[in-house]
Amino acid sequence: MDSRYLEGKEELKSSRIDEERRNFLTAGLVGGAVAAGALVAGAAHAQQVAQAPAGSDKPWWPHPKWGKDDVAGSSNWMTPAKVLDAAKWIKDGKVYRIGRVYESAMPKFGERAFTLRIPGSPTGGPFGANKVVYYDEYLATEIGQTGTQFDGLGHIGIQMGKDGDKSEMRYYNGHSAQEIGGAYGLAKLGIENCKPFFTRGHLFDIEAVKGKMMEVGEEITVADLRAAMQKQNMQESDVKEGDAAFFNTGFGKLWMKNNDKFNSGEPGIGLEVAKWCVDKGIALTGADQWATEVVPNPNKDLAFPVHGELICKQGIYNHENLDFTGLIADRKYQFVYIFSPAPIKGATGSNGGPIAVT
Amino acid sequence: MDSRYLEGKEELKSSRIDEERRNFLTAGLVGGAVAAGALVAGAAHAQQVAQAPAGSDKPWWPHPKWGKDDVAGSSNWMTPAKVLDAAKWIKDGKVYRIGRVYESAMPKFGERAFTLRIPGSPTGGPFGANKVVYYDEYLATEIGQTGTQFDGLGHIGIQMGKDGDKSEMRYYNGHSAQEIGGAYGLAKLGIENCKPFFTRGHLFDIEAVKGKMMEVGEEITVADLRAAMQKQNMQESDVKEGDAAFFNTGFGKLWMKNNDKFNSGEPGIGLEVAKWCVDKGIALTGADQWATEVVPNPNKDLAFPVHGELICKQGIYNHENLDFTGLIADRKYQFVYIFSPAPIKGATGSNGGPIAVT
Amino acid sequence: MDSRYLEGKEELKSSRIDEERRNFLTAGLVGGAVAAGALVAGAAHAQQVAQAPAGSDKPWWPHPKWGKDDVAGSSNWMTPAKVLDAAKWIKDGKVYRIGRVYESAMPKFGERAFTLRIPGSPTGGPFGANKVVYYDEYLATEIGQTGTQFDGLGHIGIQMGKDGDKSEMRYYNGHSAQEIGGAYGLAKLGIENCKPFFTRGHLFDIEAVKGKMMEVGEEITVADLRAAMQKQNMQESDVKEGDAAFFNTGFGKLWMKNNDKFNSGEPGIGLEVAKWCVDKGIALTGADQWATEVVPNPNKDLAFPVHGELICKQGIYNHENLDFTGLIADRKYQFVYIFSPAPIKGATGSNGGPIAVT
Amino acid sequence: MDSRYLEGKEELKSSRIDEERRNFLTAGLVGGAVAAGALVAGAAHAQQVAQAPAGSDKPWWPHPKWGKDDVAGSSNWMTPAKVLDAAKWIKDGKVYRIGRVYESAMPKFGERAFTLRIPGSPTGGPFGANKVVYYDEYLATEIGQTGTQFDGLGHIGIQMGKDGDKSEMRYYNGHSAQEIGGAYGLAKLGIENCKPFFTRGHLFDIEAVKGKMMEVGEEITVADLRAAMQKQNMQESDVKEGDAAFFNTGFGKLWMKNNDKFNSGEPGIGLEVAKWCVDKGIALTGADQWATEVVPNPNKDLAFPVHGELICKQGIYNHENLDFTGLIADRKYQFVYIFSPAPIKGATGSNGGPIAVT
Repeated sequence: MDSRYLEGKEELKSSRIDEERRNFLTAGLVGGAVAAGALVAGAAHAQQVAQAPAGSDKPWWPHPKWGKDDVAGSSNWMTPAKVLDAAKWIKDGKVYRIGRVYESAMPKFGERAFTLRIPGSPTGGPFGANKVVYYDEYLATEIGQTGTQFDGLGHIGIQMGKDGDKSEMRYYNGHSAQEIGGAYGLAKLGIENCKPFFTRGHLFDIEAVKGKMMEVGEEITVADLRAAMQKQNMQESDVKEGDAAFFNTGFGKLWMKNNDKFNSGEPGIGLEVAKWCVDKGIALTGADQWATEVVPNPNKDLAFPVHGELICKQGIYNHENLDFTGLIADRKYQFVYIFSPAPIKGATGSNGGPIAVT
Repeated sequence: MDSRYLEGKEELKSSRIDEERRNFLTAGLVGGAVAAGALVAGAAHAQQVAQAPAGSDKPWWPHPKWGKDDVAGSSNWMTPAKVLDAAKWIKDGKVYRIGRVYESAMPKFGERAFTLRIPGSPTGGPFGANKVVYYDEYLATEIGQTGTQFDGLGHIGIQMGKDGDKSEMRYYNGHSAQEIGGAYGLAKLGIENCKPFFTRGHLFDIEAVKGKMMEVGEEITVADLRAAMQKQNMQESDVKEGDAAFFNTGFGKLWMKNNDKFNSGEPGIGLEVAKWCVDKGIALTGADQWATEVVPNPNKDLAFPVHGELICKQGIYNHENLDFTGLIADRKYQFVYIFSPAPIKGATGSNGGPIAVT
Repeated sequence: MDSRYLEGKEELKSSRIDEERRNFLTAGLVGGAVAAGALVAGAAHAQQVAQAPAGSDKPWWPHPKWGKDDVAGSSNWMTPAKVLDAAKWIKDGKVYRIGRVYESAMPKFGERAFTLRIPGSPTGGPFGANKVVYYDEYLATEIGQTGTQFDGLGHIGIQMGKDGDKSEMRYYNGHSAQEIGGAYGLAKLGIENCKPFFTRGHLFDIEAVKGKMMEVGEEITVADLRAAMQKQNMQESDVKEGDAAFFNTGFGKLWMKNNDKFNSGEPGIGLEVAKWCVDKGIALTGADQWATEVVPNPNKDLAFPVHGELICKQGIYNHENLDFTGLIADRKYQFVYIFSPAPIKGATGSNGGPIAVT
Repeated sequence: MDSRYLEGKEELKSSRIDEERRNFLTAGLVGGAVAAGALVAGAAHAQQVAQAPAGSDKPWWPHPKWGKDDVAGSSNWMTPAKVLDAAKWIKDGKVYRIGRVYESAMPKFGERAFTLRIPGSPTGGPFGANKVVYYDEYLATEIGQTGTQFDGLGHIGIQMGKDGDKSEMRYYNGHSAQEIGGAYGLAKLGIENCKPFFTRGHLFDIEAVKGKMMEVGEEITVADLRAAMQKQNMQESDVKEGDAAFFNTGFGKLWMKNNDKFNSGEPGIGLEVAKWCVDKGIALTGADQWATEVVPNPNKDLAFPVHGELICKQGIYNHENLDFTGLIADRKYQFVYIFSPAPIKGATGSNGGPIAVT
């Protein structure tokens, strides 16, 4: 998620929602410019918010399948049997890079930064009679939340009690912000707990179904998935527990071409497809845009509800800003998805180089 | 490589070597404490150095196999045929994480830093009637040169002309520092040019051959490799072009247990095994320590000569600070090595989560 | 303050204090090694803490002198009359640098970092027929909390309600963490609100009174101040409202000589001298060590109580890691203290180059 | 200087200038959009450049006044006599902040960044029975080259020999890039060598002379200075050796109002006023824009020639992005300028909070 989208969306701040009439918001989001950085995220919400969060009137923990102590979520699907099953799909030996190149000109949200520096020229040397010289690089960035990004379980929570009460900000398996939120890394739910993904991936090319790039706020439905499967000669029964589901909206074409539009919202899945994913036992979702889900949500009261349902409640991972160009060109919709997050202790996500192998 | 080892090694600075007698240095390095950060790397070398670098009396470019325009080096071995051949080794479906967790307490060399911060608590929210909150993380580090690190082709060069002349600092395929050394990322040879690795890996457990952890300055020989293969029921003919070779020295046991000793030097391969790797067509080397090669080199005049021979001249990649504990416990010495570098434009290497699959 | 001292001090965590007997702690702190970075600061305190913080049983806001809306605290003393009065002390025209050089080898607490990189060499150029080249530098650090540091009013608060409730973490003038704690800078009480200091400074050389460097945990008393004044031919009546008070303990001699000891605790003022400062109307305190106050406090239950009393409750600024060597060598104990913080929006303090002019 | 302006100015790259005809460039710069970050600064210049840099046909070192070993440049004017002379101008006791607030929304050039993060909320605590909590901040930025910036002597050099030869990139007093350009801080000419400024400042309000904001590429002449002095009732003889000269162009009004225009070029002084400054013995120049000098220079072949003449050759400091609003409102054109750079070892400049005192 690039929740920084929400900065400047005064109308979506929960205290405001409680104060004013919710239907006031209905027309609020679409087309709104992103006031990137204009507002400090997490700004004060002085008013106590009495009612429960929409969609979360009771605790979602402990996780029914992975148990109360689990911190790995849906990466637990990655068993030897799963790997062997997935490996059967390696038939061509072709490796597709489905992540994007990281660079400072990428679309970045709000205050997020990506700053790379080469110290010196060279960084060191020459040393020895062999006169070796070397370069390093220094990178300062929201490493798990810029560019092609793999969202971990510590990224998304839900404020269950009053605003500002960290013991009532709840994450996957009920962990509270008070427990996990250290200054130098998350004390729990860091990305280092995620097991490497080596699983079957299914790509739904909704752009092809629609015949054009989807637009901001356009929701992918289960009917769309079925249309894509038919078009792609895939069976719904192909989708097994522990598989990964990827959605191509066409919106990724804007990457570094029209960053402003790319950041202004996006097409993507909504709560209907999220439920379908949960029912199927999907381990990971992914898309060619920055949140996988539709933004703004058609229900204007809700901010990134799919993130809450999938990551926070179900422990299902999410891979954003992917690039399916090569797969689509070759009409490869089913493949082995391989991604092993960089185990950065206490990070909310991971950078990396995801691949699809056929 | 963690060339920062060289800081404070006045006796290894090339100008000094030319001035003074080379054999003066013979006793110089072993046991020397690492004066981390004490000297600015790349410090001035005022004297012109007339003679050619040891071992590099003529240009090594263009690359005989990959051609003059190549920037991908030995990752070019990663062809569909190679992937299919490697995939045959997936029999158990077991995935081993062979990288280490990244954290600030890792052994780091000289001035290299690893600083992770969680902005706010939460970083943003609550937003929407669903009251979503989220965390990001901000990481500032030598991303490709701290912790488990994958050395790219822009990391290592050789000063061919006089010190300080960037047009005579030469890298893989002859690219000069003047061409590649931008302030905001390498203009050429950045890690984004490296193709994902999906190849056969062979682990040589030299610690087991020796019966104990190898020590600083102890060189792994070809005879050691052969002893390991015999012990492990491997054939030298198993090693094919495009495969990866990993060396376990036992030195990795010191990781975060005795960082000072870990940084003070290391056992590893020397020029003999480097030549063996080149002859075999090895695409990547790796080890459980920080440079793969022995430090200090038994030839005290030389600073990281294996880096120069393999990375700079041959374009062979190197993966450092790996952890083979799980593989060795299961006596798995042959596996599929999968690593897809994060394509950070202009970076010298990559962080990530390498895996071995059996 | 370098509160990171508190990391690893399990016995000082407030929840523990409430659980266990307070006198258990009496022997706990002195001589304890600083487990720098070993624990995540701000770790979870699951237990609710019923009782009020020691010394803060009722709100300290609004500020009696500066009023409820004030965010500038004791820098409000900086009036034209004050400047003119101070300027009378410029008699020699001598300028003393009383701050230290910033570098990565400085003593730094816990996870705080100071990392400087020079991008490229040069960073840019040559450009134009005049062939200009240039260098920049890239610095990543806790800018207001490393090296010579000027503590602002957003640095220190007191948890008034239960742990983790940000609406009950109170800062100067009652501002809560919920109001001020943004991810990208403090929304209130940032250092940009502090007016430049140009005031009379009084240096109390307690090291000279004691005849030697003071030691960890040794408290400066009001009697010590009076002994210093007598020794230095100063009158207590010289100290006027809006003046600055500096304390030399000798502990600064350890700077970059023995960083471990320097970080292990320190001599300094306690609550008695803090009260004296408040009574005198002191606008700023400062010392040759890292917190101005004695650490550990002789009352082992208390963690940095002087910070709470002076910064948080009174809005009195604090300048740490100063160097009075030049002033003492010249026997200059009274001078114009000039420091204008870098107005970094939302920062907790400031770096800079404080001077004393005589 | 914000030399990043030069990125994308292909026509100003010295190799190009040598290749093509210089007068080709005459029409090149004005109105050109700043392709910020589009090109890597310091990119390769393969061609050898035979001729000497324009305006630098012979070495400018050693400095005729400060001598061959000097690294403090014009801050050497800061003597006790100078301080006493300046202090006479403190008559009102009024302190003007003439620097700007630092924040990420400031105009920044090219790849330069300003990223502030608050780690945690709080960063640490509660600790002790007194339940202290605290905030830190983490800032990553080109600390001496963003916002209100004080250019040090290590910032600007001239390529005297062939491009890429660091031993012929010359800085103040002839220091070469090979000597000074470490990866972790400049080995020589770092800002820590600059003595604190406490001197007489003269403000020339050229905007008032012109009756409107000056425009991009408009040069301030000596005649303009004289017109300003007449208007402001100042005498040219008031300007003494070691004084500071400030120029108000009005361009600072664009700050955070129209960052694109602000960055596109600027009005300022040219070589004529630079010579006047040298003749007068000016110790420091400053302006309400980002380079003090006119950009582009009316001689289109030249890139920031005033920087080369004043900083590099003369060792005269330069303070950029100042704000004279308060002084002008009060018609205060002569004052004490006080600025003590943060002594960041090896930095090219300094952030801070400059003041004018009347």
